[in-house]
Amino acid sequence: MAKSRSGVFKKEASELLNRFNASLSFDKKLYEEDIKGSLAHADMLEKQGILTKDEAKAIADGLKTVLSEIKNGKFVFDIQDEDIHMAVEKRLSEIVGKEIGGKLHTARSRNDQVALDFKLYVQKNSLHIMTFTINLIKTLLDIAKKNTDTLLPGMTHLQHAQPINLAFHLLAYMCMFRRDVERFDSSYERNNFSPLGSAALAGTPYPINREKTAKELGFDAPVSNAMDGVSDRDFALEILFNISVLMMHISRLAEELILWSSMEFRFITLSDEYSTGSSIMPQKKNPDVPELLRGKTGRVYGNLIGLLTVLKGLPLAYNKDMQEDKEGVFDSVETAAISLQILNETLKTMSINKDNMLKACAKGNLSATDLADYLVTHSNIPFREAHFITGKAVARAEELGVDISQISIEELKKVDDRIGDDATVFLSLEASMNARNSKGGTAKSATLSQINDMEDWLNGFK
Amino acid sequence: MAKSRSGVFKKEASELLNRFNASLSFDKKLYEEDIKGSLAHADMLEKQGILTKDEAKAIADGLKTVLSEIKNGKFVFDIQDEDIHMAVEKRLSEIVGKEIGGKLHTARSRNDQVALDFKLYVQKNSLHIMTFTINLIKTLLDIAKKNTDTLLPGMTHLQHAQPINLAFHLLAYMCMFRRDVERFDSSYERNNFSPLGSAALAGTPYPINREKTAKELGFDAPVSNAMDGVSDRDFALEILFNISVLMMHISRLAEELILWSSMEFRFITLSDEYSTGSSIMPQKKNPDVPELLRGKTGRVYGNLIGLLTVLKGLPLAYNKDMQEDKEGVFDSVETAAISLQILNETLKTMSINKDNMLKACAKGNLSATDLADYLVTHSNIPFREAHFITGKAVARAEELGVDISQISIEELKKVDDRIGDDATVFLSLEASMNARNSKGGTAKSATLSQINDMEDWLNGFK
Amino acid sequence: MAKSRSGVFKKEASELLNRFNASLSFDKKLYEEDIKGSLAHADMLEKQGILTKDEAKAIADGLKTVLSEIKNGKFVFDIQDEDIHMAVEKRLSEIVGKEIGGKLHTARSRNDQVALDFKLYVQKNSLHIMTFTINLIKTLLDIAKKNTDTLLPGMTHLQHAQPINLAFHLLAYMCMFRRDVERFDSSYERNNFSPLGSAALAGTPYPINREKTAKELGFDAPVSNAMDGVSDRDFALEILFNISVLMMHISRLAEELILWSSMEFRFITLSDEYSTGSSIMPQKKNPDVPELLRGKTGRVYGNLIGLLTVLKGLPLAYNKDMQEDKEGVFDSVETAAISLQILNETLKTMSINKDNMLKACAKGNLSATDLADYLVTHSNIPFREAHFITGKAVARAEELGVDISQISIEELKKVDDRIGDDATVFLSLEASMNARNSKGGTAKSATLSQINDMEDWLNGFK
Amino acid sequence: MAKSRSGVFKKEASELLNRFNASLSFDKKLYEEDIKGSLAHADMLEKQGILTKDEAKAIADGLKTVLSEIKNGKFVFDIQDEDIHMAVEKRLSEIVGKEIGGKLHTARSRNDQVALDFKLYVQKNSLHIMTFTINLIKTLLDIAKKNTDTLLPGMTHLQHAQPINLAFHLLAYMCMFRRDVERFDSSYERNNFSPLGSAALAGTPYPINREKTAKELGFDAPVSNAMDGVSDRDFALEILFNISVLMMHISRLAEELILWSSMEFRFITLSDEYSTGSSIMPQKKNPDVPELLRGKTGRVYGNLIGLLTVLKGLPLAYNKDMQEDKEGVFDSVETAAISLQILNETLKTMSINKDNMLKACAKGNLSATDLADYLVTHSNIPFREAHFITGKAVARAEELGVDISQISIEELKKVDDRIGDDATVFLSLEASMNARNSKGGTAKSATLSQINDMEDWLNGFK
Repeated sequence: MAKSRSGVFKKEASELLNRFNASLSFDKKLYEEDIKGSLAHADMLEKQGILTKDEAKAIADGLKTVLSEIKNGKFVFDIQDEDIHMAVEKRLSEIVGKEIGGKLHTARSRNDQVALDFKLYVQKNSLHIMTFTINLIKTLLDIAKKNTDTLLPGMTHLQHAQPINLAFHLLAYMCMFRRDVERFDSSYERNNFSPLGSAALAGTPYPINREKTAKELGFDAPVSNAMDGVSDRDFALEILFNISVLMMHISRLAEELILWSSMEFRFITLSDEYSTGSSIMPQKKNPDVPELLRGKTGRVYGNLIGLLTVLKGLPLAYNKDMQEDKEGVFDSVETAAISLQILNETLKTMSINKDNMLKACAKGNLSATDLADYLVTHSNIPFREAHFITGKAVARAEELGVDISQISIEELKKVDDRIGDDATVFLSLEASMNARNSKGGTAKSATLSQINDMEDWLNGFK
Repeated sequence: MAKSRSGVFKKEASELLNRFNASLSFDKKLYEEDIKGSLAHADMLEKQGILTKDEAKAIADGLKTVLSEIKNGKFVFDIQDEDIHMAVEKRLSEIVGKEIGGKLHTARSRNDQVALDFKLYVQKNSLHIMTFTINLIKTLLDIAKKNTDTLLPGMTHLQHAQPINLAFHLLAYMCMFRRDVERFDSSYERNNFSPLGSAALAGTPYPINREKTAKELGFDAPVSNAMDGVSDRDFALEILFNISVLMMHISRLAEELILWSSMEFRFITLSDEYSTGSSIMPQKKNPDVPELLRGKTGRVYGNLIGLLTVLKGLPLAYNKDMQEDKEGVFDSVETAAISLQILNETLKTMSINKDNMLKACAKGNLSATDLADYLVTHSNIPFREAHFITGKAVARAEELGVDISQISIEELKKVDDRIGDDATVFLSLEASMNARNSKGGTAKSATLSQINDMEDWLNGFK
Repeated sequence: MAKSRSGVFKKEASELLNRFNASLSFDKKLYEEDIKGSLAHADMLEKQGILTKDEAKAIADGLKTVLSEIKNGKFVFDIQDEDIHMAVEKRLSEIVGKEIGGKLHTARSRNDQVALDFKLYVQKNSLHIMTFTINLIKTLLDIAKKNTDTLLPGMTHLQHAQPINLAFHLLAYMCMFRRDVERFDSSYERNNFSPLGSAALAGTPYPINREKTAKELGFDAPVSNAMDGVSDRDFALEILFNISVLMMHISRLAEELILWSSMEFRFITLSDEYSTGSSIMPQKKNPDVPELLRGKTGRVYGNLIGLLTVLKGLPLAYNKDMQEDKEGVFDSVETAAISLQILNETLKTMSINKDNMLKACAKGNLSATDLADYLVTHSNIPFREAHFITGKAVARAEELGVDISQISIEELKKVDDRIGDDATVFLSLEASMNARNSKGGTAKSATLSQINDMEDWLNGFK
Repeated sequence: MAKSRSGVFKKEASELLNRFNASLSFDKKLYEEDIKGSLAHADMLEKQGILTKDEAKAIADGLKTVLSEIKNGKFVFDIQDEDIHMAVEKRLSEIVGKEIGGKLHTARSRNDQVALDFKLYVQKNSLHIMTFTINLIKTLLDIAKKNTDTLLPGMTHLQHAQPINLAFHLLAYMCMFRRDVERFDSSYERNNFSPLGSAALAGTPYPINREKTAKELGFDAPVSNAMDGVSDRDFALEILFNISVLMMHISRLAEELILWSSMEFRFITLSDEYSTGSSIMPQKKNPDVPELLRGKTGRVYGNLIGLLTVLKGLPLAYNKDMQEDKEGVFDSVETAAISLQILNETLKTMSINKDNMLKACAKGNLSATDLADYLVTHSNIPFREAHFITGKAVARAEELGVDISQISIEELKKVDDRIGDDATVFLSLEASMNARNSKGGTAKSATLSQINDMEDWLNGFK
């Protein structure tokens, strides 16, 4: 902790303070970003005549040495150094001498360094998560292509509603994940500005070149106000929110995988590689993966609300509360990354029990709406009345112990004599599915068109 | 509740169920959206030959009658009607007869109607909030323009850090609010797709034209998958999150207004029109407005976490849990709208006590960094060493009972003889502020440039 | 707003401020508590000689008039009055004259009045919720008593695990709800102290008697520090948390009701009175009640996090942010009350399909653990090895297409010859269930004992 | 992962699954609880005749060896072992042989073992946190005893309200922390029941003695229903909530320490041992400790909402989602523990600037209420009118540039001639403070009585 304490202090920091205050235990994860930022800063200082060529070269070489020491596990992290920024700078000074090492911090502050490293981390990982999400969409698309004829009961309220095909069902998830990708992308663009050069809060008197460091580090431009530069954490909130929505989508798919794996549904069988057992019940194969995916949604929500709470009501500019921004983001990013990967593998390796899906369609009078639609279209009955008549037909089918798709035309006519002889044709499951050929509908033709659109989007994306 | 219960039910719904289940008490707020959507739907049905010209005209006229009845307070809301969709349709059927009224619901479902009305509401209010936020930025900009020479202590950790000008300080908030506007704008674009035509979950067999209704209602296109159309609430989460970040920003400014109004700071005086009193302490003038603004941040966070929780783990497609999406969004939208307006007025009517701000700058050794920078630049001392020497100079100034900006050159030289004769020139408050002329810095020149950029952005926005 | 503004104000409050600041629209719900508190206060003032007998009587009569005006809907709420406290006091002064009405506020402040009214509300509703929860436990107990022989598959990971009886399953929920009752009870006791007499923040110079008003209002004693008295909202957080846990428990039961109502399970059938239909699909009967119960969990979580956020970092004593404490509590209390009632009715009116539950037990090798236990007990094989052998037996049963409860002894012996001739006796569903007769287990005897304990607790409670 | 996979699996778990699924990386923290539970279980198995004396002894010795290996850092944690339970059991079997080691898991399941270990952890740490909180109260009490005469401005809305003494102010916090202790205590009692013996979900056929293991492990009794035993996490939610409220209280005190350390207040000076510096601004001493305390409130709120979200809607009994219960609890517990300790030290070592506190009292017309009270008591003016008159007096004082405590009697009489000659006597700061001698008030006598009560409580607690 020594280095940030100037001559104004008369006593050393207590050991408890060092332990409470230090962020090194978690922000060491940012070592690459920290060194990357320092390299760009030192290079700029040289170009602007603030460092000599020799100084800049010594610093750059020293930083690269530090980087390789950390990568090779030779770097000793010491909590006394408080944070990754101080740890790197101290080691640099050991390597190149205090005289030169002490010049690296010219024209910057820990405040903008913290903001920079963290933003570099967030931007890099936004791109990673986008890639993982696109991989997941590709897997879903592969499965969809093979299952445009696989009938299963479309549900609302977990009740059988209308027959759909599995590809159509999975396309709903692809739409969600596509929006996720777009959301990460939009956050990336909106926040792609460099805080470096904000210094403590008010800029610096040195003739720095912020455009240069910004470009060097992959940003579009420097942030436009230094106080905002050091106190803005919108980008962190955005990744936490984007991950929360992503995990919410994953949790919905996970719920379905759990339901579909149950003895009652048996729509799918998870592979042995992605199933687990019980310590006591030998017959068990448990869907731990989707359960954990569903559960992990909680922690990413918690991380989001945690940081929102931290930032509420903070006066400008930097306050130490903001050190609490990192661990939650690290955790959410790592959770999202592994979740996307294991979901992808779980989907790739599961088997789909088409027979069970089809059998399930025979229950629940899935084509009841088709009878109502028939009455509207062929018998010119207003929808509301048709809806009521069909309800009675369903009740009759239930009395007979058959599904509406299998009821005889005679029985139907008893319910309402405006039902024509051809009505049952419309009540088969395939007919019902394929009838819904409006844009975005479940008919095979409409489904294939959605698959095409999704492929176009994938090809067009980056 | 009668209308959605088909002939399959043998008993009426209990009174308790009606009370628990009905959304009419809050979703009646959507009456305009609901009727707008129905008008577009009916018009399309006619163009597609599903309704006759006469039917469509009767329905459109009827719907306009319902609209004016509601606007004029003549409409009787009856909880038996369950929701605004049923309430409007029932009244329509009273007006135009069941035969025709019953045809409006052809080729759609409550599920897509709910999604449509709610999305129309969210999109409309995103635009409203953007407008209110821009108005707030304009007010901040007006104040900033008059205060580029108003010195106040820039703070970190609520400790005096470096002298800055008030315009620069307010520009930090303008940057936050600008990002807010961009965030609402981005969500608007990403979600501007129409769910209408998704029907229950699988599309419809009727030859509808979803592009037509989408365009008519101000959307870019229809959503591409019907199941996603009825079960997607990302747009609602996005507005809840965008409002949360907006209110977080507002809470930070509110915190500063509260601090600045305190007896200890007295940087500003809130106007009587926007201050309140105490029931017991006659001398009190309380900053209730910024306090409430700060407090209201809690409720919008709560609304966000509430909906995230609701959606977690829901299987496809529509589940009744999703009815819980609306009240939180309505509340957050209304909170944001009034908060932005009253903050705007509070800022417009407050007075700025420049003298107190300036006096505060004389405390806290605000120009200490300038001494360190001087040592680096003029005496070629590495920053880390300069930082330490300056700490000792500050300690000396404190012993002498003066601020570093007023210490004598002799005393400074006693601390370190490498301090040159001209050092004190750099330690005046104005010099300190204007030295920080890097891009985004607090120097007057840099501040004016930021003001220009902000004006350009405002002019360029829509 | 007039009344709390003393002569120190030179301008009236703006209309926008009145609208933003006023709490009357929601805190009018506290009118009974407010008047109750004022009656106790006035009575005490008289006993202490601060009011004369006549003044006190006039005030008491006046307050009762106000109470009946509000109850009868004759009271005109005017947003200008800011809050329920001012509204009641103003009306009182109209009735009894300003001279006397103005004396009611002697020796108290709005700050302690707000705290008092709100605490009275929370305490009263804690008791209500406890009563509703006990009613729910009674219903569950009634169903349990009739279903100690009703077999269903006990599940973990939504996979069939071991056979259990329905009473045992429901007892798990009774345990949860019993803890809920205890939690509300504990909060009630911990917070049953009166803030009245705290005045603005520092007590009052009048010779008041806080013990008297505390007792009168049902509290155990006055709170011990005035500053804490006006700024403590722990009691509000506790009821929000207690409701959150309660609704979490309800959401788990709701999830099971939804699953059990599905076509795939058909373990129960919800009554028509507590089911709903679809606007488009005539065959649908939807479990809207449990879905909404599950969904409403989100809003009560949101209310909890909302108030936690509001209170974070508030300096002492009262801050206006705290006005945001009420709406969330009102909403959670009302949500809990109706949720408990409708869940109770839903359970009472549902039918239990015992046949389907039993049929489900024949799938999933529920008695596999019994084979492992047999191997441990009868063949002296360590549990870990027995567990592995049983796994192989299950695999063999699956190859044969039978459940482990129906496999032949010959086949079992082929898997491992240490399996004795009597092994299959232990594998019947009834045997398996009744074997688990450890305390708290699912055996009928153990279940009956749990039912007895629960009845004892119910009888012992209050 | 090998051990929980029975012969029913045909393929090994994937490496990715092991990594995703394993909890060993965090639940190894529970090794003491796990071994403690196993020792109690094995001992009971022997007493019940399920294990032989020799087997039980071998297991007990083996477990103690494992314990010492872990404590001495000699234990190799291998992610293949999935969790701490499996890791300990595997090592035990290496030490005592599979034949005997495999018998430890007789009559229990991982489900009840997980619940047991976690509950033991929560109960133990509830007691620790209570102790730390009591230590904090003791420190506050020590400071209070020395500061019953230390005047400072009592505030509401961060505006000067009435003069109070520092002891009285700190007593408000002691009241909060006392409730915290009571809350932890109440949760401890409510949840002190042992899940051991619940087995997988339905109890066990072995003749176990749950009362014995419960007592042995410090519980009052076994939990009464096995399904509840393995799926209840109320105790975890309670500790998360209790810590949230505790940290909320800490955040309020932290906010005041930050304000009081600011240049504008200067009420206190934090010690060098508990202050930090700036990397760029040499004059800075920052209150990092209270800032971090305030910030850490966010993470504990996040942990609470995280687990609430996880548990919502989970069907019975154990689901893998519940593995997400631990990390948040560990984090909140550790956060609370260090926060309480460092706050305690920070308070002990700070200096109180009584002069500055007193000087602040001279601003803000703190004794205005006393004038109003005077008018009520001495001039028989209704409070409302007195309140208004005093407002005018304050306005007059402000015109004159003096505080109401220093205004002349002549000027007062000009405002209203019912003000008597003795009025100013009541307006001195000391008089004002000591006037508020109602129970719980700020008068020195009332404050001393509160100190006594707090000491009595401390002495009475355990």
